[in-house]
Amino acid sequence: MGHIIVTGAGSGLGRALTIGLVERGHKVSMMGRRYHKLQEQEQRLGSAVVGIAADLAHHEEVEMAFGAAVAWGGLPSLVIHCAGVGEFGPVGVYTAEQVRRVVESNLVSTILVAQQTVRLIGEQGGVLANVLSSAAQTGKANESLYCASKWGMRGFLESLRAELKGSPLRLVNLYPSGIRSEFWDNSDHVDPSSFMTPEDAAAYMLDALEARSSCHVTDLFIGRNA
Amino acid sequence: MGHIIVTGAGSGLGRALTIGLVERGHKVSMMGRRYHKLQEQEQRLGSAVVGIAADLAHHEEVEMAFGAAVAWGGLPSLVIHCAGVGEFGPVGVYTAEQVRRVVESNLVSTILVAQQTVRLIGEQGGVLANVLSSAAQTGKANESLYCASKWGMRGFLESLRAELKGSPLRLVNLYPSGIRSEFWDNSDHVDPSSFMTPEDAAAYMLDALEARSSCHVTDLFIGRNA
Repeated sequence: MGHIIVTGAGSGLGRALTIGLVERGHKVSMMGRRYHKLQEQEQRLGSAVVGIAADLAHHEEVEMAFGAAVAWGGLPSLVIHCAGVGEFGPVGVYTAEQVRRVVESNLVSTILVAQQTVRLIGEQGGVLANVLSSAAQTGKANESLYCASKWGMRGFLESLRAELKGSPLRLVNLYPSGIRSEFWDNSDHVDPSSFMTPEDAAAYMLDALEARSSCHVTDLFIGRNA
Repeated sequence: MGHIIVTGAGSGLGRALTIGLVERGHKVSMMGRRYHKLQEQEQRLGSAVVGIAADLAHHEEVEMAFGAAVAWGGLPSLVIHCAGVGEFGPVGVYTAEQVRRVVESNLVSTILVAQQTVRLIGEQGGVLANVLSSAAQTGKANESLYCASKWGMRGFLESLRAELKGSPLRLVNLYPSGIRSEFWDNSDHVDPSSFMTPEDAAAYMLDALEARSSCHVTDLFIGRNA
């Protein structure tokens, strides 16, 4: 019955996490860049959710979006940072614009969202969950830019976890491998038809995020069956 | 409704996993060294379980125990290797007997159980879950021997996972930090009163081991709240 913030809530995994959270009785502030995607979720899920359009790579937008979320639902008990983008191909093909976009959308947004979360609930406590990727575990051909952003997230989050030791704010790092979603629409180096569904990945993640009195999941790695 | 083998089922985490599995409708072959502990579980859980006494550091005993389990419940869909022991203190204090005991009980047993599991269900498929420890992630003062055995398990299991790529047999590696149980009865370098309960850890693990059609948890890390 808590208030939960989900970023990247308009599509793919973030959308499935939001639907799963509402089914489990929570209310969700949905953040994303594309307001029409959030509106579709509002129409489906009703008063349990609110859509807040924001580009989380920009400090002022993060601050405004979190302010709007708190105004709507109070302080969150859980923030799930799911927003992210990919650009793929051999290292030589990326334009400077693509490099900037991936680094800002994945790594800079993670830092800004973490800062806001620490500011809001660092003292009262709660959970900040970040969706990383199997791309944060190894290097992958044709994914050097994406891997760079995801390894960067991991380094940031492991450091933040060390800083938060003993604090009531906990970090949960989620590492799915490829998910079947529109994330891959502009890629042709993989065939996403065998990837995991957003719903299956979300179900494991929400189980892992259930609170228990003596322990909590710190890291969850999910692989596809096929 | 499957048949599941749990090693180290007489106490601590293995005991809690067994109880949780029976509650979820499964039947469990419980393996452990101390038959009276398994008998207590049989009395509590009735015909859903059978106790099989075995020291899994010995090849013949592993073979006999798995044979008895299959005779009772058919081929297992899931094997959870939870059995393990600890000896703690600065590196100079371990006797040769303690060194042998920890290496055999933790690392050798893991290899023998994996061999039997591959032999039995490598072709039909299923899941082999191993309980490692946060001691497989870092080095810890006063735990050098235990860490050696757990890092050894990790290296073995990561290699086996690479060998099994594309196979229907999957590995799930479970990494809890300290669990409140009799495991620590002979230790004085830690205070287990703030450790996680076996029941909470087992609940996260069993959620992560639920089958889903498009993906599966490969690695689960659990930390204590306090």
